[in-house]
Amino acid sequence: MSLNEYPSKLLESAVNEFSSLPGVGRKTAFRLVMNLLKRDSGEVKRFGETIIRLHDEIRYCKVCNNISDTEVCSICTDGTREKAVICVVESIQDVMAIENTRQFKGVYHVLGGIISPIDGIGPSDLKIDSLEDKVKAGEIKEVLLALSTTMEGDTTNFYLFKRLSKYNISLTTLARGVAIGDELEYTDEITLGRAINNRNPYQQC
Amino acid sequence: MSLNEYPSKLLESAVNEFSSLPGVGRKTAFRLVMNLLKRDSGEVKRFGETIIRLHDEIRYCKVCNNISDTEVCSICTDGTREKAVICVVESIQDVMAIENTRQFKGVYHVLGGIISPIDGIGPSDLKIDSLEDKVKAGEIKEVLLALSTTMEGDTTNFYLFKRLSKYNISLTTLARGVAIGDELEYTDEITLGRAINNRNPYQQC
Repeated sequence: MSLNEYPSKLLESAVNEFSSLPGVGRKTAFRLVMNLLKRDSGEVKRFGETIIRLHDEIRYCKVCNNISDTEVCSICTDGTREKAVICVVESIQDVMAIENTRQFKGVYHVLGGIISPIDGIGPSDLKIDSLEDKVKAGEIKEVLLALSTTMEGDTTNFYLFKRLSKYNISLTTLARGVAIGDELEYTDEITLGRAINNRNPYQQC
Repeated sequence: MSLNEYPSKLLESAVNEFSSLPGVGRKTAFRLVMNLLKRDSGEVKRFGETIIRLHDEIRYCKVCNNISDTEVCSICTDGTREKAVICVVESIQDVMAIENTRQFKGVYHVLGGIISPIDGIGPSDLKIDSLEDKVKAGEIKEVLLALSTTMEGDTTNFYLFKRLSKYNISLTTLARGVAIGDELEYTDEITLGRAINNRNPYQQC
């Protein structure tokens, strides 16, 4: 079924809105809209209002740029977290991924992206100045660069290293190695090579 | 990454709303919400408002129950359509599917579902009375039953046949046969049997 003609303009605009979302085609969008139409009026209204509130009311922590309901996020205000250790990440999703490991006890700094000339994103589009200001203030002992292992991630890592290496802090990065569950046969040679160079004493766990 | 803890309650409710849509899990919902957060405020507001308007303003044609921006839909008001031929369909999607073939010149009657005891849907939940009223009024020559070839569709067809066969109209149904592009080897025996019984004179097309 091609969906070229809609019986209603309003239906068509709703389908347009949903199909603007990533990974949602016109057929899926139409199915989602038809699902909304079958619901109670109150439920649909709440859906729409949540989206509007999302943009009107959502705030970003003024310290680390993480999403927050308050001016400073719950991680930055948590007295048990080590404020001298900053983990630099690309996005809020990465904060959540690291939080879910429960292995990191420091605080975060969300860059809001990575350097990507092809997308027109340069250092000035990211929250790098505010990161340097924190380091410059002298309270920071360690900056952990936790960016993706892509070309853009490596570029950003290198740029941050250049900017921050003049300060008296330890600059660390995530360990590279064979992922848990991976078969050696299918591990790429760069990863495997790094895993050999960075080999650790055997530990029973 | 498990998404158990969200940094913001508002973010969490937005993810909840999106994951209530069919086929959208919590990870996808989170991705969609993050996409909305990256957009202009105006764009997001329009998205939310379209959803609210969708339920407040959408109307159903009072003649055929199709979705419409006006009291009577564009198909029912179209003078070139044959009002004496009614195609009975389950849903608005089916109207669009048939319209896209450009083969049907009559009008529609949308039942709003099919008889399905397992889902608690009986004849009184569907727009069957208004269909019978139209037929009773005596202007109708043909009722084409265009329901799905499922057990529920067949049940509804049979029920409609029982209700409408006492009137002086021709009751027709969609042709059953081998779909275009199907291989005979993989066609089920009921379909193939019907295609043999309903065989047509060969025509060059």
